Order: sequence, then structure tokens, then C-alpha cells
Amino acid sequence: MTEPIPTIPDISDAALAARLQGALDNKTKPLGALGRLEALALRIGSVLGTESPVLEAPQMLVCAGDHGLAARGVSAYPSEVTWQMVENFLAGGAAVSVLARQHGLALTVVDCGVRQDFQPRPGLVSRRIAAGTADASEGPAMTAAQCAQAIANGREVVKALPGNALLLGEMGIGNSSSAALLLSRLGGLDIDACIGIGTGLDGAGLARKREVLRQVLALHAGVTAPLDALAAFGGFELATLTGAVLQAAAERRVIVVDGYIASAAVLVAQALQPHVVQRCVAAHRSAEPGHALMLERLGLDPLLQLDLRLGEGSGGALAWPLLESACRILREMASFESAGVSRKDS
Amino acid sequence: MTEPIPTIPDISDAALAARLQGALDNKTKPLGALGRLEALALRIGSVLGTESPVLEAPQMLVCAGDHGLAARGVSAYPSEVTWQMVENFLAGGAAVSVLARQHGLALTVVDCGVRQDFQPRPGLVSRRIAAGTADASEGPAMTAAQCAQAIANGREVVKALPGNALLLGEMGIGNSSSAALLLSRLGGLDIDACIGIGTGLDGAGLARKREVLRQVLALHAGVTAPLDALAAFGGFELATLTGAVLQAAAERRVIVVDGYIASAAVLVAQALQPHVVQRCVAAHRSAEPGHALMLERLGLDPLLQLDLRLGEGSGGALAWPLLESACRILREMASFESAGVSRKDS
Repeated sequence: MTEPIPTIPDISDAALAARLQGALDNKTKPLGALGRLEALALRIGSVLGTESPVLEAPQMLVCAGDHGLAARGVSAYPSEVTWQMVENFLAGGAAVSVLARQHGLALTVVDCGVRQDFQPRPGLVSRRIAAGTADASEGPAMTAAQCAQAIANGREVVKALPGNALLLGEMGIGNSSSAALLLSRLGGLDIDACIGIGTGLDGAGLARKREVLRQVLALHAGVTAPLDALAAFGGFELATLTGAVLQAAAERRVIVVDGYIASAAVLVAQALQPHVVQRCVAAHRSAEPGHALMLERLGLDPLLQLDLRLGEGSGGALAWPLLESACRILREMASFESAGVSRKDS
Repeated sequence: MTEPIPTIPDISDAALAARLQGALDNKTKPLGALGRLEALALRIGSVLGTESPVLEAPQMLVCAGDHGLAARGVSAYPSEVTWQMVENFLAGGAAVSVLARQHGLALTVVDCGVRQDFQPRPGLVSRRIAAGTADASEGPAMTAAQCAQAIANGREVVKALPGNALLLGEMGIGNSSSAALLLSRLGGLDIDACIGIGTGLDGAGLARKREVLRQVLALHAGVTAPLDALAAFGGFELATLTGAVLQAAAERRVIVVDGYIASAAVLVAQALQPHVVQRCVAAHRSAEPGHALMLERLGLDPLLQLDLRLGEGSGGALAWPLLESACRILREMASFESAGVSRKDS
């Protein structure tokens, strides 16, 4: 069932980019007056390969999993919150549920390896690897086979979803530690620059998290390859998301990146296949300090800066209408000629 | 027909604010994890006086007028673009038309004093003061009576509109000069800090604009009262918007402030009635450098920073879904109790 990492081709197309830029420049507005919305329109048009992009059946994919490392007290919340929040996603009461409903985003929750089992129901996809990862401070969070399986799972889940846009979401108590470890190792950054309070650690908690993550990095000092780092630091939801990103990129879907954790999955995917990032839009820059560094590594400019630190895909959902706007600008705005508006140099 | 400036009361209500904060803190997310969206929810709830705010029949009001000062070459575009863009708004091809359609915002265009006459049609309201203001470099742009009439017009237009939210938009070649003059005089700032390229002046054009605006300020050196400054510097659309802001504030509508020009109308309204700002949400920070200074004077924190420089209400329309999201968070998100999610300290 496991599949290899797909090759993600370079989709840069100078002729298409020139046509898109020409279309934007000919809309009834001063050159560049829509600022970064124009860059967004250019990117979406480039991914979808058209000057009249239409975002179809957007899919919010929330991958959930538990972390053995959470037992070390790296999060402000207990592990049981992972399954409780999965229930909340499915019941429609979580932030991502509310925002997905607002914007007509189909919500799929994937159990990638939550400690507690779930009853099957609509909107929940079971792709469990195990009841949570192993404790990364004692050994790798996943075996290589588990990691490969989780990536394959993410690819399969996306393959089965319709549409041409994928929004990344996640839930997993302790997963800001995995993200920090991945950024530190793959980005060559000191762990101090990658650590934040996550869901709300106090000062003592943050010091404990720093100490634990230093131990984890020391234990896995020799691990440098992207898949080895992913297996060492977890989690199942991050590996599943990495597979989802690779599959969506292979299918030229527009990928909407949420916060620190979702970005870490893209960081791994980028390390494997650099061109994935051509398909990505960064929804926001999180309040978690490492996120700015992560986005810099990815070369992505976030649309929103609202001091969010929730994850779940909430930032992606909040930014979604901007992607719709960018497409509508291309499709629906009049040109100077069609509207009979004088140009600057007339 | 002209009416006096309404008294805008202080609506701060510590008990309501505490209930709103309590409701937000009890939603299934870490404290403050939705960042500035929570502050937005608190503001909207405070304006509408409820913990379950519903934004109803939002109105995009685009006020248009011409400026005598445009003859001095302070804009990259000729004055005729004002009426051409009004036609474009009504035909549905302008950015604000496209974005208002996307978000279900009713679009009303007000001819406050465009040089060219319009045929009556749906969506266009005629409140013409004159065919453009006088040249502010030769005398006041408006008489005191014209200014009062334009303010009364804005109040009447808003009174006739349904809903509890008003989005400000404008069109008027040359009006970034009026905004710069108002900021300089009412804000006590050097004109250099208030000037930008507007719709796209080149270096020589910007130098000319600076020189002309210095002359205008010198001519009206004794003018300091808000209404006198508004009359001196124009334009009809700014005065009409000022009236619209005052009326919307009096009715406790949520006021969505767009870019540099719309903010200048709020600056005048604030100078007249400081509590208007309690009802305002800043949609974005424009690329026009003076806008950041203006927002600082208003004490407003912009939601978006997308390097927009278009006006029309385009930034307000782009930010609109965030206001909707803030309301839905309050209305639809589950509490820890209702969702059975463990708290941080459990």
C-alpha cells in the first residue's frame, strides 16, 4: 500500500506568468494597486494553469494524532484533548468547523493515530498507524515503515478527495514540539529560535519544553535526512500531512498552508521535493515565533498576520476568501478598454 | 435640509466587555488563540451591544466627487476617470463591484459632486453639491454651506439604508491630496510625512504634488477647526463620507474603514465627535505611507496589510469575511463544557 515519494515537477511557465501579469495590469485599477492580492492571483493562476482560475470543491483536511513526547510535559494541555477536539471538529463546534462552514469548505478529519479509538461516522477517515507515536526522547517517534505508511495514507486520502484546492489542518497535543524539532534540524537553526509557548505554556513550562527538545535533538544527533527526521520527531499527523502535500502538489492543487505545524509538513515535503512550494499559499503568520523563520525557509509570504496560535486549519479558513477574491479579480474585473476608462498616460 | 453634527455618545460598557471576553475565553481554544480575531469580535459585540452579534444587510457606500485641485497635476490620472469609474462601479466591473458581489454587500454609489452628470439608475444616488470642488490652491475647496450640505447628505443617505454595518468607499481623482492635507493639518504633521504616490505618480509628479500641497497649506494657514479644514481641502465625497460616518455612529452601526481617503473622513468625524472611533474597524493598512500615521491617530489596528492602494472600498470588502468570522466565533463555537473538552489546568 505504501507508495514512493512522487516527483513534483517545476511548473514555472514564463509565458503563462506574463499573460497573467498582463491581464492584471489591464484591469481597471492603477498598476499594482491591489498589492499582494495580485501576487496571489498570479500564483493561483500559475498553479491551475489558467488566466481564469476557478477554485472548485475546496477541501479542509484536518489530520490528528497523538505524541508520545507529550508525556514529558511539552504542552499546556493533556493528550486527551486531541480526541476531544476531534469530536468537537466532527460535532461542528470547533473554530475550524465554524470557519469551514462559513466558507463552504468540505471538512475531513483524519485519525492518523490518536490514542483513543473513534466510532466511524461521516467526515471522519480512519488511517490509524498506532495509538500515538513513541516518545521521541527515548527513540524515534515512528519507525521508518510507520512514517512511510503515514505518508502513503496522506497521498491516498487526497487522491480520494475532489476539487483543486487543499487546505491543511491538524490537531495533536504536543505537535508544536515536532514542528520545532523539524525546523531546527532541517533548517539548521538553534532550537531556542524554534520554540514557543504553543497552546499556552507558562515560563516554567517553556523552559521544560526547551530542555526536553534539546535532549531529543541530542538523542537523534545523527539524523539529517528529511524522512529520518520526520520519523524521529513525529508525528503521525505530520507525516500524513506531508503525504497530502506531495499528492496535492502532484495533482496541481492549490495548497493553503495554515500555521506552524502545517508549515512543518510543507517543510518536510519541500526538503523531499522542492517544487511543492510553487503550489503553496501561506495563509498567515502565527504568533508562534518559529513560524516566521519557517515561512522564510519556505519562501512564502503570509496573507494574514492576526496573532493566531490555534492551528486546526483555522488560519487557512480565515484566509480562504482572499484566494476567492484573487480569482474573481482575474475573472470578473473589467479591462480599461471594456470599461472605457482612461489610462494614466492618456 | 442641513442638520447639525449629532452627538456621539461613549458606548464603552465594562460589563458587556467582560461578558464578551468571558464568552471568548470559554470557547474551545487556548486563551487568546484566535488573536486579533478575538479583539474584533469584542469590538463588534460592543458596537451592536450583544454577545451574539449578527451583521445584517451590510452596505458598501462609495462616495464620488471631483477636485478642483486635480487641475494642478496632483494625480497620475485625469479627472475624467472619476466619472468613468463611477460607470464601472455601476456596471459591475470595478474591484469594489466584484468584491461586494462576492460577499453579498449591497453597493450604493453616491454622486457627491462629479464633474460629469449621470443618468439616473439603480444603485446610483445623486447628492451633487457642484461639478467638482473649487481649486484649493486658490481658495477653499468648498464654502461652509456646501460642506455642511455634503455632511447632511451623507447622514441622509445612511439613514435611508438598512442594516447594521456600513463599509466606506470613495472615488475622486485627486482625493489623496485632500486626505494628506487633512492629516497634516488635523494631525499636526509635516505634509512630507502625509504624501504618497496615490494612484501612481512618478518622482517628478510626487515632487509637484508636494509643492502644490505646501502652497495649499500656506494659503489656508489659519484654518484649524475640523469643519473649516474639511471645507478648505475638500472634497465633496470626503464631507459626504464624514456625514455618513457620523450617522452610522449615531445608529451604532459597525463602520468598516477602508484606505487613506476613507480614513481621512473618519479623522474629521473623530475631530468633531471622538467616540465615533468606538464603532470603527480598520480594514487594512494601505501602501500610502500616510495611512499608518492616520490609523495611529485614530487608534485603529488594521486587519489586513496587503499593500493595497486602490480605495473604492476594496480593502473594506476584502476584510469583510473576517468580521463575519468574528461574529460566528461568538455565536457558533462550542464552550469547553458543551463540547466536553478538558481545560489547560485539568
